[in-house]
Amino acid sequence: MSDSPSPTHDPPLVSLDAVREAADRLAPHIARTPLLTNRSISQMAGRPVYMKGEHLQRTGSFKARGALNALLAGGAREQAGVVTVSAGNHAQAVAWAAAQVGLSATVVMPRSAPAVKVAASRSYGAHVRLVETVQEAFREALRLAELENRFLLHPFDDPHVIAGQGTVGLELHHEMPEEVVELYVPVGGGGLIAGVAAALSALRPALRIFGVEPRGAAAMTAGVKAGTPITLERLSTVADGLAAPMAGRIPLKHVQSQVKGIQLVEDASIFQAMSLLLTRSKAVVEPAGAAGVAALLDLSHNESSAPAATILCGGNVDPSLLARLPF
Amino acid sequence: MSDSPSPTHDPPLVSLDAVREAADRLAPHIARTPLLTNRSISQMAGRPVYMKGEHLQRTGSFKARGALNALLAGGAREQAGVVTVSAGNHAQAVAWAAAQVGLSATVVMPRSAPAVKVAASRSYGAHVRLVETVQEAFREALRLAELENRFLLHPFDDPHVIAGQGTVGLELHHEMPEEVVELYVPVGGGGLIAGVAAALSALRPALRIFGVEPRGAAAMTAGVKAGTPITLERLSTVADGLAAPMAGRIPLKHVQSQVKGIQLVEDASIFQAMSLLLTRSKAVVEPAGAAGVAALLDLSHNESSAPAATILCGGNVDPSLLARLPF
Repeated sequence: MSDSPSPTHDPPLVSLDAVREAADRLAPHIARTPLLTNRSISQMAGRPVYMKGEHLQRTGSFKARGALNALLAGGAREQAGVVTVSAGNHAQAVAWAAAQVGLSATVVMPRSAPAVKVAASRSYGAHVRLVETVQEAFREALRLAELENRFLLHPFDDPHVIAGQGTVGLELHHEMPEEVVELYVPVGGGGLIAGVAAALSALRPALRIFGVEPRGAAAMTAGVKAGTPITLERLSTVADGLAAPMAGRIPLKHVQSQVKGIQLVEDASIFQAMSLLLTRSKAVVEPAGAAGVAALLDLSHNESSAPAATILCGGNVDPSLLARLPF
Repeated sequence: MSDSPSPTHDPPLVSLDAVREAADRLAPHIARTPLLTNRSISQMAGRPVYMKGEHLQRTGSFKARGALNALLAGGAREQAGVVTVSAGNHAQAVAWAAAQVGLSATVVMPRSAPAVKVAASRSYGAHVRLVETVQEAFREALRLAELENRFLLHPFDDPHVIAGQGTVGLELHHEMPEEVVELYVPVGGGGLIAGVAAALSALRPALRIFGVEPRGAAAMTAGVKAGTPITLERLSTVADGLAAPMAGRIPLKHVQSQVKGIQLVEDASIFQAMSLLLTRSKAVVEPAGAAGVAALLDLSHNESSAPAATILCGGNVDPSLLARLPF
């Protein structure tokens, strides 16, 4: 990642000011997503639940924010284009952001990526290269970055990406009632929770921020335990959007200092939450997007009756999955 | 329908003032639903498309508006409660509205009603009676109205119901850009199009309003042709929300004088529109809710490139149907 602005040792935290600058840059381009509520879901959680509808964001996930901020703020425009690695939403986001900025984009994706996400990335005009494994994808992206003089944009371990994702936190600060005491944020590589924590730990110091990871892809939990990013040998979750093989270095630092804990959820709980969001909120979310609601419905972890919030972080679900939901 | 306020001969049209009164009554109770847009759907329709998100309305359909307006404005509160006949969304709406007003509600439904709509009606506290046929349901509702001194609320042929549905039109008037030249409204018994036409033919006389009916349940088309409501012998459509056996007398009068025409759509087009709304707009709509988008995507009927609007009138879909969608 030598072309990336992210340092490799002891990186600094992303600041509230960086998030505010991102918000100014992004304002003309991104959607102001709604904060949703649902009577049934709040009743089942035993507390009022507020849900930030990032599945309605451009490209169908919050990733549009970080990708565009990085392309607007970073060095990509001095190079011949951008290249990135992603199994899904970041690929779509980079493809879309590059089109906004007028840059050429190449996205290297593993063949296991959901077909809808591959098709969507192509529809925004990106060149998609499919390779066998995530490891091979990183190698190929590095090769293309050198060969074609492309800016290599990391999906989460990049301060501009994190600052962009943090704009979700700024909006939540304006939208959430004062009484909200806890926020549950789905975690893959950790870009979203890092940015949101950067914003809200400064703006709402009393808010308790928790991460949510699938039990079968708990890279942040492993990193927090070890004190450094750990590569998971095996990933097993329906939530492809949260299946990062390791946490980012910068996100890990934010989690260590600004996040209260990580709650693990089972795939079955994620399916249940997707089903509720579909039937009660009429909202289509992907498994990653339902993880926060799954955590809030796990009453063995949640004994508070005070209002809580979460982020429906993405909506790009393979439609065949809908037929497998429990109704 | 002797207990209903709707006259049986040459009923008067519902006025814009009646719709405005309904809006004042309903404001504290109903959701202000968003006007949605989607890049892909507009591209496929060859024109900008605006979609009023009534699938996000209380009870999951616009029917909450008419039912509550009728209970607040009509004679129900002088009686021992309310009884109605419905295969679906009107049942849920009356159950919810009665709970809002503190009235007892009985809903007579045919056994063919979607399970989700029966369950939802019960969840709002209504007593649900299941009978074999729609004809039997009307007889049973009449019997209960007399026996239990209940107010019999017609699902669409009632001026207060129509005025309530018309509040969708008032909101559209404030939300739609000036450039919108056509509005496509799904039609079952005609309550929604009657109310919307009452409001918009007065407020936006240049707007062309069209109805949309499934080819297999085109009761309004039959009524317009005959000049009087016609009972269809056979209903065959996936859009249970539009499968009224006949148009209402008042709605027919509105359509005759305020509507430009009725466009017929096939079930296959409705499925296609549901699939697009699910994958592109992340919106769960029932077949009736997708009928307007289906009409706009039928380019053989729509040659204009000027902006158009439609109403996503309901979201209460049996989840098993989602597995049958073409993706």
